[in-house]
Amino acid sequence: MEKIRIGIAGYGNLGKGVEMAIRQNPDMELAGVFTRRDPSSVKLATDGVKAYKMEDIKEMASEIDIMILCGGSATDLPHQTPELAQYVSVIDSFDTHAKIPEHFAAVDAACRQSGNIGVISVGWDPGLFSLNRIYAESILPNGKTYTFWGKGVSQGHSDAIRRVAGVKRGIQYTVPVEEAMQAVRDCKQPELTTRQKHTRECYVVAEEGADLKKIEEEIKNMPNYFDEYDTTVTFITEEEFDAVHNKMPHGGFVMRSGKTGLNEETDQMIEYSLKLGSNPEFTSSVLVAYARAAYRLKKEGAVGCKTVFDIAPAYLSPLSGEEIRAHLL
Amino acid sequence: MEKIRIGIAGYGNLGKGVEMAIRQNPDMELAGVFTRRDPSSVKLATDGVKAYKMEDIKEMASEIDIMILCGGSATDLPHQTPELAQYVSVIDSFDTHAKIPEHFAAVDAACRQSGNIGVISVGWDPGLFSLNRIYAESILPNGKTYTFWGKGVSQGHSDAIRRVAGVKRGIQYTVPVEEAMQAVRDCKQPELTTRQKHTRECYVVAEEGADLKKIEEEIKNMPNYFDEYDTTVTFITEEEFDAVHNKMPHGGFVMRSGKTGLNEETDQMIEYSLKLGSNPEFTSSVLVAYARAAYRLKKEGAVGCKTVFDIAPAYLSPLSGEEIRAHLL
Repeated sequence: MEKIRIGIAGYGNLGKGVEMAIRQNPDMELAGVFTRRDPSSVKLATDGVKAYKMEDIKEMASEIDIMILCGGSATDLPHQTPELAQYVSVIDSFDTHAKIPEHFAAVDAACRQSGNIGVISVGWDPGLFSLNRIYAESILPNGKTYTFWGKGVSQGHSDAIRRVAGVKRGIQYTVPVEEAMQAVRDCKQPELTTRQKHTRECYVVAEEGADLKKIEEEIKNMPNYFDEYDTTVTFITEEEFDAVHNKMPHGGFVMRSGKTGLNEETDQMIEYSLKLGSNPEFTSSVLVAYARAAYRLKKEGAVGCKTVFDIAPAYLSPLSGEEIRAHLL
Repeated sequence: MEKIRIGIAGYGNLGKGVEMAIRQNPDMELAGVFTRRDPSSVKLATDGVKAYKMEDIKEMASEIDIMILCGGSATDLPHQTPELAQYVSVIDSFDTHAKIPEHFAAVDAACRQSGNIGVISVGWDPGLFSLNRIYAESILPNGKTYTFWGKGVSQGHSDAIRRVAGVKRGIQYTVPVEEAMQAVRDCKQPELTTRQKHTRECYVVAEEGADLKKIEEEIKNMPNYFDEYDTTVTFITEEEFDAVHNKMPHGGFVMRSGKTGLNEETDQMIEYSLKLGSNPEFTSSVLVAYARAAYRLKKEGAVGCKTVFDIAPAYLSPLSGEEIRAHLL
């Protein structure tokens, strides 16, 4: 079997997750890891595969079918994805919602010039949650969609905690409010404020001698991050922090409550949920499945930028049309 | 706006549901209802639309963009879908799993001859549940998928009850076993027998003077339908039957529990569920969304038989690519 040759650009948590996910898919192989660090300092988990400098992508493009970009949405992907799309078909997990139209246009232009495929904003939100929103809203036009996140670690909020003076270590969990979810499940179509949907739980290791009261107040009143939420701050020891808060769990819920019938009197409820032991490992698994889709679309001659909305589900599966109709339909 | 002209073939619960769903979608209109009954005896809910004889479809094909077939899978659809595909693009909810490959081949052949599109097995299972199986299995290749149905009315099992001597009225609810679902959610990947997954609850109005003990035994020991399940039989009055058991609720769950990570040690859980106030109304809503997709595919020049696996989600939505990327991604 001819294997799909995957490249990884950026070898942080997400890049490592992609490497692991490739090992679970026998129709794929890792062709190389590209890094901004010194390649000789990068130790891969896959035997016989090398790390290269980011600049080497240009020369190695012919050895890679799909490049999975594993950088951050804030500063890496906005320029990296369109740049690399000049040389190779690309896929990323760009998640800055407000800037998606702009990113789409840039990647689309680069792909159309080079004849490559680009798939952007792949993961679970944006990604699988987006899919569930479009399916549910198309099927139940009269209804209301809700997204809840958690329980899970928010990287952005954890970073914000760590910027507070006197904080040595910090982590933040976003927690959906059970009563709000229940009201949605009961088809009450409630109007929910930000505060009613999620709470924020912070675990902090303070520097020796720090003013705990002050840290707590500063976190709870931080604009944009915490001030619109009910926030708890719990101080713990460094030992507890390392033992209990060393994972990156996440997850969430997309629900649509709709009405059907002659007088729109019948309640219909669609719910999708994820409970993820590791956010980066799961996002990587989604990226790898869509890399298979991108590879096939490219082979069929497709060009330009796509999102999960534009890709038929059959492209994600290693099985044939006959097999999926017989076993999964 | 040019509206999508929908025809309905078969005006039972499903056909009536399609009529209601069309009213919720401003880009569609009902072009006609086709029935095997005397058309003058059929009263439609939509003003200005007529009922026709089933045979009239041939002559009226040019006035219909997509024909939604609302007959049964046992005897109607196996011949109706390929037959009508000779004249018009079609969509059905064929749900006899074992015969899907055969049905696909027949509809595909008819469509390729006529240049039409046929979409088969659209609804929630097969349909939305199938979508969730393919997405989840493609993303988590190392895992186990579970489908639970209910709580909901099984038409086949209700019919079986009503064939028992001494039964005047009867209805059967399929109920998923909560402990089994919990074990799946806890990522234990249990091996579950038929009996461990679902129970069957029967509500029966007996004929006057009937032997209740005998009815109960006959139901509980009925091969294929009840003997492999824990079944309860509750005798009720006709008044209670009419008051409480006059709806067709249904629903269910698709879950995939998978492992990721270097040593496949991380638990990942995907769950999709439906809680439907009316099974036929919801199935109709899915059919209508896929009728939009079929219409667009046909316009693009696509030909042949498709399933939900072959259709990109964007085709289902009335919104443009820009709108879905801005609002749903």
